Amino acid sequence: MSWEKGEQLYEGKAKRIFSVKGKNDVLWQDFKDQLTAFNAQKVEQLSGKGLLNCKITTLIFKYMQGNGVPTHFVESIGETALITKKLDMIALEVVVRNVLAGSTAKKFGIEEGKPLEKPLVEFYYKNDSLGDPFMSDDQALMLKLASPKEISDIKILALKVNDLLSELFKACDIRLVDFKIEIGRDASGHILLGDEISPDSCRLWDMKTSEKMDKDRFRRDLGQVKEMYQEVWNRLQKNWSQYV
Amino acid sequence: MSWEKGEQLYEGKAKRIFSVKGKNDVLWQDFKDQLTAFNAQKVEQLSGKGLLNCKITTLIFKYMQGNGVPTHFVESIGETALITKKLDMIALEVVVRNVLAGSTAKKFGIEEGKPLEKPLVEFYYKNDSLGDPFMSDDQALMLKLASPKEISDIKILALKVNDLLSELFKACDIRLVDFKIEIGRDASGHILLGDEISPDSCRLWDMKTSEKMDKDRFRRDLGQVKEMYQEVWNRLQKNWSQYV
Repeated sequence: MSWEKGEQLYEGKAKRIFSVKGKNDVLWQDFKDQLTAFNAQKVEQLSGKGLLNCKITTLIFKYMQGNGVPTHFVESIGETALITKKLDMIALEVVVRNVLAGSTAKKFGIEEGKPLEKPLVEFYYKNDSLGDPFMSDDQALMLKLASPKEISDIKILALKVNDLLSELFKACDIRLVDFKIEIGRDASGHILLGDEISPDSCRLWDMKTSEKMDKDRFRRDLGQVKEMYQEVWNRLQKNWSQYV
Repeated sequence: MSWEKGEQLYEGKAKRIFSVKGKNDVLWQDFKDQLTAFNAQKVEQLSGKGLLNCKITTLIFKYMQGNGVPTHFVESIGETALITKKLDMIALEVVVRNVLAGSTAKKFGIEEGKPLEKPLVEFYYKNDSLGDPFMSDDQALMLKLASPKEISDIKILALKVNDLLSELFKACDIRLVDFKIEIGRDASGHILLGDEISPDSCRLWDMKTSEKMDKDRFRRDLGQVKEMYQEVWNRLQKNWSQYV
């Protein structure tokens, strides 16, 4: 199918969203080379990052769909763009943790790297001007971000994505520490996986060396950001060639 | 019954806890005149505050027990002390909000005073060195602070306390904005209401004038702290003399 890019609807920190001419139910999602952290207080351009994240997201979303997870993915187009279904996005950042790291480890004074007995699902209110604050299920309901049924469905979906994603990365000798997803509703009100899944939105540790292979390299000034994103892509395409 | 104060076991910000000689299942809880706020960064002595909070807590706990809420209250002893059951305390501060105010209003950028469609129950991790951080149910389970059944029971108890407390204060022309309670387990593992309920742990607004009648007078330097605590006590003992 051929798609023609329409007007820009939105520019986020890592992506630009465009309409598609003559199509009301899809969007054109373009991956930027920009890296940001700490609510965009730290910003850097990294040539080729958008291309890698687009390839990685494409492979992962094909894999998710192949395993029964409904997603917004329609097809990849060019090197840095996807066509996606247009969703009514839910203003939640849904985080799943297998190992404690980042803000939650800090909040509870627990050393990074503690494996959890079972995965922990967390909600953050997607609101840049408020700093994306952590919230409880009851607070999400209070703000009417989602219905009680949707909150429950989102958790089930997040845990299924976690199981699949853990398997995917395990085959690549990568430990899935945690990740963030975003969820939307399609025209029928069904819950779908949206946004992206990439080293920008996951914590990925090399299983043998424990080296970080994700955006923490940028957050914590560890260097070799692009090399590690490239290595994630190399391992994914080698082990999961059926989804390339 | 006569009680003899034993050794001091613990000194908190607003209370000292002593053992009771010859009794292993009860504690002696002494109310201090100290006011603290912002995790004890702001501290002041207020003569007579301990006495007022002890009287108010006593009335409220008698009222709770009279209405079927299990509490740690055994009897009041002297002007500033209670005998309480010894509980295995759960490291949660349980907050119930009827109207948005304080940290949650600020976190979501909502103006103070917004009434909620239904009461909101929140958990904070009771840990001074970590600053009592807000937490979700799932995080409380992760830290094994309570079992899933206890989390559910604590919410039911908190909402029942809210209904009763709202009625109690409504009869005094006082609006119950929010409050904090603490919960413990007795020797049989049952959930009981512990700690205190007083203007230190509630937000109370005069129904006619909207004046604050609680610790926000101290937090926000509004003056007349003791006068307002006294007024809360005066109204309670006038309207609820059966529990004095």
